[in-house]
Amino acid sequence: MSRDDSFLELLRRRTSIETFDPTRPLDEVAIRELVSDAICTPSSFNIQHWRFVAVTDDAEKQSLCEAAYGQRQVVDAAVTFIVLGDLLGLEKLPEINKRAVECGALPEGKAQAWERLAQEIYGSAAAARDEAMRSGSLASMTLMLAAEARGYASGALSGFDPQRLCRSFDIDDRYLPVLLVAVGYPKATATTRQPRLDVDEVLSFNRARRY
Amino acid sequence: MSRDDSFLELLRRRTSIETFDPTRPLDEVAIRELVSDAICTPSSFNIQHWRFVAVTDDAEKQSLCEAAYGQRQVVDAAVTFIVLGDLLGLEKLPEINKRAVECGALPEGKAQAWERLAQEIYGSAAAARDEAMRSGSLASMTLMLAAEARGYASGALSGFDPQRLCRSFDIDDRYLPVLLVAVGYPKATATTRQPRLDVDEVLSFNRARRY
Repeated sequence: MSRDDSFLELLRRRTSIETFDPTRPLDEVAIRELVSDAICTPSSFNIQHWRFVAVTDDAEKQSLCEAAYGQRQVVDAAVTFIVLGDLLGLEKLPEINKRAVECGALPEGKAQAWERLAQEIYGSAAAARDEAMRSGSLASMTLMLAAEARGYASGALSGFDPQRLCRSFDIDDRYLPVLLVAVGYPKATATTRQPRLDVDEVLSFNRARRY
Repeated sequence: MSRDDSFLELLRRRTSIETFDPTRPLDEVAIRELVSDAICTPSSFNIQHWRFVAVTDDAEKQSLCEAAYGQRQVVDAAVTFIVLGDLLGLEKLPEINKRAVECGALPEGKAQAWERLAQEIYGSAAAARDEAMRSGSLASMTLMLAAEARGYASGALSGFDPQRLCRSFDIDDRYLPVLLVAVGYPKATATTRQPRLDVDEVLSFNRARRY
């Protein structure tokens, strides 16, 4: 494998955008492409807990804005993805594994072992919730980087009222709202990136410490 | 902004690796570079809840393997990052904002508003825990993609005993173990990528549904 500086530059170039150009939509093809990128994300036992509601309709955007405490970027962005995590993702594993066995990506014995082990681990509701949150977040990050790579801007919002969101968008109890990811074209390019803590403020070797 | 196909290819090329070459280490410079990539990740109010323990020492790798239910990749990988989320990340916000104001990235009035709002939201332990999990997961995804871009392989492990992990690595109650991310050189390149659900199986427009 060789070094790919292009991604490392993209990573440093990307910054969260709060003001989008409301006159530039994304069509369904572009939105599907972004989701096809996001689902390249790895997940525990390949359960793929992530689900996406792409909010593009003007009335629905208003409703989303209300659930997001009035944050305007969900109205102006071309699309805001409500990223969900499936709390019962485990139920899909036999079908997921069946397809993986059929295409030769997974030996049948391993598939059965995975299903037993996954049941043992994610039978607990708390563990299932953590995993839904993890998988949904991992996919959200891929989605934001893919948006940057495709020439769009993005911004994540974790500030929303989950009850109101679920009510407004018919989100079943089965799904945990993980994050909102707004994607579109930026209105102004003058956004300043927030500085980060230094590497040595967040990293230790072989032992944890007080960071 | 222009389209960057290189990242989209990297994303499709990357697959989770379980067998690493134990003879090829990564030095501290390389490990710091990976963390400097990971911390480009966005976070709520720029709190940057992520912390990283880079496990490279042979004895510590054995101990990590025991906490990870015997999964060998943490022994063979050059480094496994224990990704932590700071449950009290909010405490660092005034210092983070002070630096952002000083370098001109954040207006002083906005900094104060952020601190009030963040206190309101993450004063609740449950919300703080969710945010630590989210931020740690987002950073983990960036870390895995950065590893790929730098010519390494990676694999995430969410199967570990958190109590044992915290005991073995002196992890304070303040930090939530989010994920283990093993990074190194792959031993065999014959790993098959697991197939994914189709886009239309995980995506809906404007309304949630049963996926």
